[in-house]
Parts: sequence; structure tokens; C-alpha cells
Amino acid sequence: MRASCILLCFLMFLAVSSAYPGKKKQYKPCKELVLYFHDIIYNGRNAANATSAIVAAPEGANLTILAGQFHFGNIVVFDDPITLDNNLHSPPVGRAQGMYIYDTKNTFTSWLGFSFSLNSTEHHGTISFIGADPIMVKTRDISVVGGTGDFFMHRGVATIATDAFEGEVYFRLKVDIKFYDCW
Amino acid sequence: MRASCILLCFLMFLAVSSAYPGKKKQYKPCKELVLYFHDIIYNGRNAANATSAIVAAPEGANLTILAGQFHFGNIVVFDDPITLDNNLHSPPVGRAQGMYIYDTKNTFTSWLGFSFSLNSTEHHGTISFIGADPIMVKTRDISVVGGTGDFFMHRGVATIATDAFEGEVYFRLKVDIKFYDCW
Amino acid sequence: MRASCILLCFLMFLAVSSAYPGKKKQYKPCKELVLYFHDIIYNGRNAANATSAIVAAPEGANLTILAGQFHFGNIVVFDDPITLDNNLHSPPVGRAQGMYIYDTKNTFTSWLGFSFSLNSTEHHGTISFIGADPIMVKTRDISVVGGTGDFFMHRGVATIATDAFEGEVYFRLKVDIKFYDCW
Repeated sequence: MRASCILLCFLMFLAVSSAYPGKKKQYKPCKELVLYFHDIIYNGRNAANATSAIVAAPEGANLTILAGQFHFGNIVVFDDPITLDNNLHSPPVGRAQGMYIYDTKNTFTSWLGFSFSLNSTEHHGTISFIGADPIMVKTRDISVVGGTGDFFMHRGVATIATDAFEGEVYFRLKVDIKFYDCW
Repeated sequence: MRASCILLCFLMFLAVSSAYPGKKKQYKPCKELVLYFHDIIYNGRNAANATSAIVAAPEGANLTILAGQFHFGNIVVFDDPITLDNNLHSPPVGRAQGMYIYDTKNTFTSWLGFSFSLNSTEHHGTISFIGADPIMVKTRDISVVGGTGDFFMHRGVATIATDAFEGEVYFRLKVDIKFYDCW
Repeated sequence: MRASCILLCFLMFLAVSSAYPGKKKQYKPCKELVLYFHDIIYNGRNAANATSAIVAAPEGANLTILAGQFHFGNIVVFDDPITLDNNLHSPPVGRAQGMYIYDTKNTFTSWLGFSFSLNSTEHHGTISFIGADPIMVKTRDISVVGGTGDFFMHRGVATIATDAFEGEVYFRLKVDIKFYDCW
């Protein structure tokens, strides 16, 4: 019996020892949300329904048309509706607000800094995102760096996919948010 | 005695098992700071004491007056004094540096990306913030996404309140920073 | 023997009790990377090899020359090569993409928001950074707020040093990235 207790102690010790590294290796999300957001860039003719605007551009470019050289240097500010499905006209569950920066001269990539403000029967709170977005890649991961409300102190990884686009005016992004630190 | 040892083992196991989820439910801050910062927007006539400037605007707007449509598309860069109380003329304990973006067309909301650089007898280090700021709401939460120095690796939530404003030139923000991950 | 088991239990309990605070006090990085990136600001004459561009400026300034008053209000968007050593012409292991904002009127400081996209035999993934950068200080710390791929969920602190500069056109930054939360 003494031996069994020592064995138990030893097994517990193993369990405990692995508990912390175990957290480190836990790649199963503690929460997951799949949402869509819809970006309609102002192009000089769609003021009524545009949800974003070019607000900065490099020398020689203007604020109505995205700049040449893969839009390098454009900063776009947006306030886009978030929906549960891929329909722009579905009732929004919140707004995606922030900016993206076209930051490469020889392909389309952007740098994203934005937050989701969710306000629905299911979710109330904010989720903040930061990351490099190689737009031409089918799915790309950015970092979920913080949250408030229902997403208090959450962290994770969001996988973004361009679900649809029309010219350079409408973009629909599918965002698969996986939280790995949920509090 | 053997039984008691096994009981002890079992209790320990329970304690250990709950330790990690326990961290997850710990909503009591490990550190808290209440600070004020003071933003004086350049309006074309106050160059000497302005602490921020409009640096980007949508098509048709200019950089002296905040844009129409709830300033949608304006990016403001700031370097504001931080004080311990609500007096602009109190000795600053650091600087709030970064930017805010007016990002909604039908109300006042902004997206914030900034850092506090604290340098006083009490605190030395930086705290970085990201988040959506629905300005018209009395208090709103943003994420504290990182820190250095005294705030090494800290994370938390900051509650912002507009403590005072004068026209569209002076804003005083009260920031209640609650750290939940203190290292 | 019973006593020794109890002693063992007690020691284990101590070990476990200190394990969690132990994490909190663990200042030894779990991973470290030292990388260089190279920023060549567009100045109106170097379009071919410039890696960054001024895209926003305060009233009265332009987008070709950095603004007066310590460049206060300039936003620079960049897409800079990352190298393993301090040679601009070494094979790049990735790109540093994002923006910096000159945010002080009486000295050179900037606010950084950017990501490293690493894509080499050794590293594949992104690392995102946020922070205040008092440029004139020899080394300054910013926050590593998230990562993807090989740097999944990582957090840490990055120490930046200006390794070299030529006028206001070329800057080489050395970045010592210390991760303290590695997953």
C-alpha cells in the first residue's frame, strides 16, 4: 500500500509536471466563431453605401482610386457590417472597425489593425486583431491579441479567407476565429 | 495513516486540477493604474500647444478641420501628456503616443492604437493598447495587449471615459487600467 | 516510510504551488531570434529601391520629405527585407511589413505597428509587434503581441536598436526578439 501511495504520488507528479507544458501544446480551441464581414470601398460614386474610404496614399496617388504598384502605401479606414452568413443583407451582429494598409510594392499584401464590436443576443464584446495579410493566399492567419466583454482577455488566431470580391469595390471576408486562451 | 496520505494526495490533486481553471476565472486585477491623458487637437490656430494633428482624411476633407460624417476617415496622431489627476497642468508622468482613427459614418467611434510611455519615480515602462472606442458611450473597454519594463508581458483591459471636452479641440480621457496577467 | 511519503507529498505540493508563480517570474526566454531589417524611405528620387513611403503628413507638409518638427504626424508604410545579419544584400528570410508614425513634436519618437512574415528553411510564420519607439535611445523595448505558424500564440518583448543609418533615407534596425510565452 505504501508502494501504491508512492506510485500514486509519482503518477500525480507526472500529471502535474506535464500539466503546464500540456497547456502549451493545447492546440484545441476553447472557443470558435466563424463570421463574415463586408467591405465596400468608396470609389467616388458610391458614397451612400461605401463602408470604407482611402484616407492616405503615397505621393502622386489620390484618395478616390487605389494607388498603382499594388496599392502600396494606401491606408483604408473601414466600418464594415459583420454577419453570421455570407449574405451582405443578413442582419448584422456587429461592426468590423479599423484599418488596413497596402504595404507591398510587388504583390497585394496588407497589414491589418482592427476590432470586431459584437452586439447581438449571442455575443457582446470586442475582439482585436493585428497581422500581416498576404491577400492573394487562399487562407492566412492573423493574431487575435485581445478582447473585452464576452471575450475578456481572450487570445487566439484568426484565419481569413476572401470569400468573394467584385472588382476593387466589394470584398467579403470569412473569418474563422479560434481562441486558445479563453479565461 | 495510509488512508490519510491517500486523502492528502487526492486533495492535492483536486487543488492542482483546479489551479489552472482557477487562473482562467480570476477576474481580480493583479495591478491597477488610473491615469489621465490630455489631447489638444491642432485646429490651425493652436500650433504652440496642440498635442495631436490630423494627418489623414478622406477625399474632399482637409487636415485642419475634422471631416464631416462624424469625422469618418480621419487619422489623428498624438503625443499627449499623462497625469495622475485630471489637471492638464499637473506634472506629467509620461506620454500617451499613437493614433486614433474615426471609423464610423453615422456616429462617433474611433479605433485606437497607442502606448503609454511612463517615466516617473513610481513607474518606468510602456503599456500598449488596441481597441474599438465607441466615443459616445460613457465607459468603454479596450485591450491592453502588452507591456515592457515595469509592465513586462502584462495584459489586461482598460476602461476609458471622456472626463471632459471643450469643443472639438480639447479632450481629457480617464483610463482605468486593470492588469489581469502581471508576470 | 509513511513519513517519507508525506514528506514527498509535501515537497510535491511545494513544487506545484511554486509552479504557477514560477511561470510568472520566469524571465528566461523560451525562444530567441535576432534579426535585422532594412528600411529605405522614398525621397522622390529612389523609387526603384525604396521599401517604404510617407503616406500621411500634417497640414502644410508633403509626402516626399519628412515633415518638420521631428516629422511629427508622418505615417510611413513599409515593406522591408529581413536578414539574418547586418548586410542589406544578404538573402532575405522574410519581410517586415506595417507602419510607423512619428508622434512627437520635440524629439524623434515613433509608434510602431508591424509584423514579420518569415519564410525560410528555419522559420515559417508571422510575429506581430506594437509599441512606442523612442528612436534616439540606444535600445528600446516594444511588445510582441502575437504570432502564427511557428510562432503560434507567442508573446514576448523585442529590443530594437538602430544598427546603422544614412541620412534620413536608410535605416537598419536590429531586433532581438525574446519570447516568454511559447506554447
